[in-house]
Amino acid sequence: MRILLKVLYDGTNYFGWQRQNNFITVQQKLEEALSELFKKSIVIRGASRTDTGVHALGQRAVFEVDTTIPVNKIPYAVNTMLPEDIRVTGADLVNEDFHPQNSVYKKTYEYKILNSEFPNPMLRNYTAFIHKKLNIEKMREACKYFLGEHDFKSFCASGSTAKTTIRTIFDLTVSEKRSDDTISITVTGSGFLYNMVRIIAGTMVYVGESKIKPDDIKDIILSRNRERAGKTLPPNGLTLLEICYKN
Amino acid sequence: MRILLKVLYDGTNYFGWQRQNNFITVQQKLEEALSELFKKSIVIRGASRTDTGVHALGQRAVFEVDTTIPVNKIPYAVNTMLPEDIRVTGADLVNEDFHPQNSVYKKTYEYKILNSEFPNPMLRNYTAFIHKKLNIEKMREACKYFLGEHDFKSFCASGSTAKTTIRTIFDLTVSEKRSDDTISITVTGSGFLYNMVRIIAGTMVYVGESKIKPDDIKDIILSRNRERAGKTLPPNGLTLLEICYKN
Repeated sequence: MRILLKVLYDGTNYFGWQRQNNFITVQQKLEEALSELFKKSIVIRGASRTDTGVHALGQRAVFEVDTTIPVNKIPYAVNTMLPEDIRVTGADLVNEDFHPQNSVYKKTYEYKILNSEFPNPMLRNYTAFIHKKLNIEKMREACKYFLGEHDFKSFCASGSTAKTTIRTIFDLTVSEKRSDDTISITVTGSGFLYNMVRIIAGTMVYVGESKIKPDDIKDIILSRNRERAGKTLPPNGLTLLEICYKN
Repeated sequence: MRILLKVLYDGTNYFGWQRQNNFITVQQKLEEALSELFKKSIVIRGASRTDTGVHALGQRAVFEVDTTIPVNKIPYAVNTMLPEDIRVTGADLVNEDFHPQNSVYKKTYEYKILNSEFPNPMLRNYTAFIHKKLNIEKMREACKYFLGEHDFKSFCASGSTAKTTIRTIFDLTVSEKRSDDTISITVTGSGFLYNMVRIIAGTMVYVGESKIKPDDIKDIILSRNRERAGKTLPPNGLTLLEICYKN
C-alpha cells in the first residue's frame, strides 16, 4: 500500500531534505527510521526539496509498504525512531497513482524576518535579521502585483532545471507581530521555482527599505531578469507550511 | 565606572548562567568577550542565576571598567565577540552602589507550553510538550490565588538557600496562541525561589488537566509542602523576560 506522510522538521542541522552522499539530510533520517520500523529498506519521495537550513511544518512524503501496523499509528511508531528535530504527524492511505509532486494543488511557505535593532538569539535559526526599519504598509501594497499567473523568471535562481518559469500565486500577505518584532511574508502558489520564495522575500525587503516602489514589482516581473529582483534571503527564515493536493 | 548590561540568550547549549568549572556557561562566554574587548580581565555579576536550558530575553549583568568606548556602543562591540546564541542589547552607566540582585524591583518570566497532539520540532527547545488538552479557562481562574504576598514554600525546590520563602506575585496571566498551539504562563513577582516558576507552571498544568481545582491553589500555598504542588516542568520552556530596578 502507498502511504502519504506529513513531516515536520527543524532544518537547522540538516543539509536539506533530499538524500545526498556524505551529508545528513531529512530524507535519509526518515528512511532510516521507517526502514527500522518496517524491518525492510524503505525509500520515500518527498513533495518539496527544501534546502539546507529550511524548515517544514507541512512537508509531505510517500512510500510503499505492506504492514499490519494500523496506518494511523505509524506517526507514533516512527517518531520513537526519529531524532527530536524531525516529527511525523500524519499518515494516510493514498491511491497507487498518487504522486507527491505531480498531485500538488498548492503550497504555502512562510518567510520570517526579525526587524529590530539587535538580533534575538532565540530566533536566530528561524528568522532573517534585518536591522533597518521596514515599511510594512509599502510591503503590503506590493503584494497585489505578485498575484495571479506570471512568468517568474526574475525570481528564479540560476541553475534551475524547471521546464517553464510560469507559476500562479494565489495569495501573498505580510503580517507583523510587534511583541517580538517579527514580520511574516506568507505566500501560497501552484508551485515555486528554485529559491523563488527567498527572492520574493528579498524583493519585498527592497520595497520595505524604499529601495524600490511597490509598483516596480510589475516591471521586475515583466523584465524576466533575475538581476532586477531583490537578494535571495538566507534559508533559515523559510518554512514550508502546507501542501494541498488535488482531490 | 559601573555598567549594567541587558543580555539575551538561547540557553539550549549552556549549563545555565553561572560560571562553573568544566561546563560552558553564559557568564563565562560574556566575561571572555568583555575581557577581549577591554583587554583586561572582566568579572560580571548577573541578576538571575538561570538554570541549564533556560533562556533569557532580559537578563541583566553588571561589571566595572574604565574605557573610552562610549557606553551606548558597548553592545555592538561586544556582540562581535560573542557566539550568536548570546547578544547584548543594552548598556547603561549606573551608580557605584547599584547591585544587580539587591536593587531588583520585579522580574517577569514566561513559561511556554506546546499543547498539541504531536511535538513541533521548531519549538522543541523553547516549550514543554504536553499532549493532553489543557483547560485554559480553569488555568485562568487559578491565577488569582497566586497573587499577592504569600509564603511560597510549596513552590520551592529542595536545596534552596533562600533566607525566607515569602515572595510577592504582582501578575500572573495565561494566554493561548491558537496558530501554533502554544500556551504562555507569564508571571511577574518581587523575586522567585529556586524552580518556583517551573513549579507554578507544573501546578497550573494540573489545574488545566483537572487533576486539581483552581481554588485548591489556596490550600497548596497554605500547606507549605512541596509535595502538594505540581511537577517541576522542564527548563527549556522557561524564559526570563524582564528585570525592573528600583529608581
